[in-house]
Amino acid sequence: MDYLIEVLKKIKSVDLETSSEARDRVDSLIKPKGSLGELEEILIRLAGIQRTVFPNVDKKAVVVCAGDHKIIEEGVATSKKDITLIQAVNMTKGYTGVCALAKQAGAEVVVVDVGIDNEVPECPVIDKKVKYGADNFSKGPAMTRDEAIKALEAGIAVAEDLIKNGIKLLATGEMGIGNTTPSSAIVSVIGNIDPASVTGMGANLPMDKIKHKADVIRKGIELNKPNRDDGIDILSKVGGLEIGGMAGVMIAGAANGVPVVVDGFICTAAALIAVTIEPKVKDYLFASHSSLELGARHATELLGLKPVLNMNMRLGEGTGAVLMFNIIESATYMNNEMLTFEESGFIVD
Amino acid sequence: MDYLIEVLKKIKSVDLETSSEARDRVDSLIKPKGSLGELEEILIRLAGIQRTVFPNVDKKAVVVCAGDHKIIEEGVATSKKDITLIQAVNMTKGYTGVCALAKQAGAEVVVVDVGIDNEVPECPVIDKKVKYGADNFSKGPAMTRDEAIKALEAGIAVAEDLIKNGIKLLATGEMGIGNTTPSSAIVSVIGNIDPASVTGMGANLPMDKIKHKADVIRKGIELNKPNRDDGIDILSKVGGLEIGGMAGVMIAGAANGVPVVVDGFICTAAALIAVTIEPKVKDYLFASHSSLELGARHATELLGLKPVLNMNMRLGEGTGAVLMFNIIESATYMNNEMLTFEESGFIVD
Repeated sequence: MDYLIEVLKKIKSVDLETSSEARDRVDSLIKPKGSLGELEEILIRLAGIQRTVFPNVDKKAVVVCAGDHKIIEEGVATSKKDITLIQAVNMTKGYTGVCALAKQAGAEVVVVDVGIDNEVPECPVIDKKVKYGADNFSKGPAMTRDEAIKALEAGIAVAEDLIKNGIKLLATGEMGIGNTTPSSAIVSVIGNIDPASVTGMGANLPMDKIKHKADVIRKGIELNKPNRDDGIDILSKVGGLEIGGMAGVMIAGAANGVPVVVDGFICTAAALIAVTIEPKVKDYLFASHSSLELGARHATELLGLKPVLNMNMRLGEGTGAVLMFNIIESATYMNNEMLTFEESGFIVD
Repeated sequence: MDYLIEVLKKIKSVDLETSSEARDRVDSLIKPKGSLGELEEILIRLAGIQRTVFPNVDKKAVVVCAGDHKIIEEGVATSKKDITLIQAVNMTKGYTGVCALAKQAGAEVVVVDVGIDNEVPECPVIDKKVKYGADNFSKGPAMTRDEAIKALEAGIAVAEDLIKNGIKLLATGEMGIGNTTPSSAIVSVIGNIDPASVTGMGANLPMDKIKHKADVIRKGIELNKPNRDDGIDILSKVGGLEIGGMAGVMIAGAANGVPVVVDGFICTAAALIAVTIEPKVKDYLFASHSSLELGARHATELLGLKPVLNMNMRLGEGTGAVLMFNIIESATYMNNEMLTFEESGFIVD
């Protein structure tokens, strides 16, 4: 708890003055004003986050938080629990989707066990296990308030280590069979939206089971009565351990002036938790892609971020966020490589 | 003419059998089926284009075709003609938007003079000048049919040289003050759409001049009566020399099994010319971003391609296409780096 409070205290507002200086510079580059659209906006936001007109994102990492969900015993997922463990281990070997895309983007993949419901064999998965899976929130809270704080602190600790080692751009990803269920619950609570509107197919759940999934979520919310103004309460009542870990990564990014790219639906739910705990976190986040998962649009609208990639992706693991790394880096290249009108001796009239 | 005919004869349909094999492989990778969305579709299309289940795009180049437009004397552009030359030269020095983004993506930038209305000083701009600017098409054809063919052949020759040197992925870009005007004319003719619906602000043309721009285009189309089934006729009557060059690059890509990424509005107009000349070219093209230029949506719909990037960009030069390079390369990493369920010994049930 002390660690969380101490890190939350470090979070400052982004530096709007530096952003404004960056905007002046971007406007002076040899192109029609505004013609690089979102690339310009990315650079301007990066400048405010890193507090420099020449932000740098050369060292990048995606933190994949893994955890299980006992709520799958309600029949809300098609995959077996053990896949969380199998894929977490596969991720440390470079075999999964996020590893492939991170390799292309020149980014590190860091896998964290926040709540895998299995013993993890000797491997590079970072052990921050809070407990063996979140409890079935249709029968009681997913975890205690203390466990929710520990999950947040797990993500914070991993992110702060990476930042100490020079990482300038973070992304969050997740592995957790069943985790679209707590994510839909979080978006439902924070957005005050009926679960039916934010509950989708996850990893290929048949259409006829989606209504049941929404009913389970509704029951869990009614039973646990999470306080929608208290992010830690929501996380503990209807959340997940890896979701807490990702929210922690975002909080650590904000506390240390490091931008964090949010992946799809589950990460957006984690971002909503982080922003409910500390609203200033929002300005440190970048959206990436529009997930196909039902509820993703609601979630990004609640967060107030606009994804620029329309890839029809719904794998998770951080895959969409990692695709965004190159685009964010391109914004820094725009800023570093293009000449200004003045430098180029361009005739302006 | 002989060169164009010979290259057109080389164009085969993409290899649907290899695409189908690639789809089987993609479906066998350790992820929920279909969950990498457009990345999967990109890989499957690449496989059909390169005729291998393991396509490779490690060597990339963007061909920026430059040309002027005497139609700017009608007051359809705000920038001065000389900027075409200045920016073409700046591009060979690495100073412009496309250079910055190409550097990030590890791609080569090749600049071609297809019709700059100035003497080009000694520099790496490739000299394929057909003539000094396209003529004012509101007073007569933009160029002769022979000149249109020469413009196409200019792009083909440059692209075929790059392909001989090992380039596996091409993009087109352009530099030409005034070139949204012929582009709107092309989209208007091919789509049978009134110019007012496809004529926009270009490089910051004031709103009150956009109607005049559409009127100039309408007048040019009525005067020249381009045959909408004859791509070369449209190019010669209301097109531009650099637009012909870009269409040539696309034709050369199709003839040599090399995918070509289409940038924004002007490139899409060039693609419509290429596809009108030879419909098989379409299957070799990838869209990139949704340009903000009015008419871009019509143009991409006519072409039948779906941009995945929503960046609000409208610079041109190939900037949007180059952002797409990393995404296309990511699709090949997905295919090359991820394990299949079988390879991973994954328990599937």
